[in-house]
Amino acid sequence: MIAEFKRYIKEKVKLSEEDLELIRSVAVEKIVRRKQLLLQQGEVCRYKIFICKGLLRTYRTREDGSEHVMMFSPETWWATDPESLNNQTPSFYYIDALEDSEVLLWTKKDFAMLCAKIPALKSYSEKLISTNLNIGRQRIFSALSATPEEKYDEFVASYPNIFARIPLHMVASYLGVSLKTLSRIRQAQLKR
Amino acid sequence: MIAEFKRYIKEKVKLSEEDLELIRSVAVEKIVRRKQLLLQQGEVCRYKIFICKGLLRTYRTREDGSEHVMMFSPETWWATDPESLNNQTPSFYYIDALEDSEVLLWTKKDFAMLCAKIPALKSYSEKLISTNLNIGRQRIFSALSATPEEKYDEFVASYPNIFARIPLHMVASYLGVSLKTLSRIRQAQLKR
Repeated sequence: MIAEFKRYIKEKVKLSEEDLELIRSVAVEKIVRRKQLLLQQGEVCRYKIFICKGLLRTYRTREDGSEHVMMFSPETWWATDPESLNNQTPSFYYIDALEDSEVLLWTKKDFAMLCAKIPALKSYSEKLISTNLNIGRQRIFSALSATPEEKYDEFVASYPNIFARIPLHMVASYLGVSLKTLSRIRQAQLKR
Repeated sequence: MIAEFKRYIKEKVKLSEEDLELIRSVAVEKIVRRKQLLLQQGEVCRYKIFICKGLLRTYRTREDGSEHVMMFSPETWWATDPESLNNQTPSFYYIDALEDSEVLLWTKKDFAMLCAKIPALKSYSEKLISTNLNIGRQRIFSALSATPEEKYDEFVASYPNIFARIPLHMVASYLGVSLKTLSRIRQAQLKR
């Protein structure tokens, strides 16, 4: 499992073997079955999660039971609830596995220790946060202004190759369009 | 102008007089008239902006000319396009003044220098970024799931006391609801 992470991180950040060993020494390997929860609404989020294999989903529910997908995290992506993790407050979110998955976990404390000892990792982590901020802004802009077709195209562009792995109703939930609308768009696209 | 900033930052961060003086020495004071632009789509964003007095708006347009408000920044808030500023890429956004305003500007380079020399400022800046990330996530969730009434209530809660200062059509644009819907909600609220 750690091999996938090492391959990923070496591409992104220049790290010494000692740095890598330190990062590995505090990582917890976990195998997650499909439908298993890694975080539950009301719990304090304890980990930063790196996905070595598989696919996670971050979602939130409303009082009426409806589910709203905030994010999909396939392999080499990350998942966490930064607000709950940083402030140690109960989370609004669920994180579950859409496929059998292999993940690495770091506690807040250990990740902070790693960032303090490895400035390059801290910089990279800051870069990921600002990328997330930009993705969020783009998604807000789309939510305000894009047509369902445009939302669909953006989704396919930002999540290449995972469309087929996700149930259509979850994609619809992520996009904030009805399943019926999404099905119609898909049909039209397939005919092109 | 700098007095407002000092009052604000002293409440948030423990800084020495030397730190404050360093921050001040690289700040540019600017008076902005209503409707004046501080950033234009296609330009590279050059500054982090702190609002001492007045009200700024960050918005984005579509090819059809429609405007979509991403953020309002009243006094003691910040405004910038972090993506354009950090990557030195052309911005998708406009920032303009909705009222005559007084702002302080720091270039990317100067702000980075300040963060390098003043760790407490760097921590505070990181905290602001993560707060923005959380606000963005909440807004995405609302866009996906909230009723227009709920969006309105959230707006009033997160922007207390500035509703009256903003034209209604801009609030509607921020919320992603029609002006007609927003007017109806307002009427109903005022009757309560």
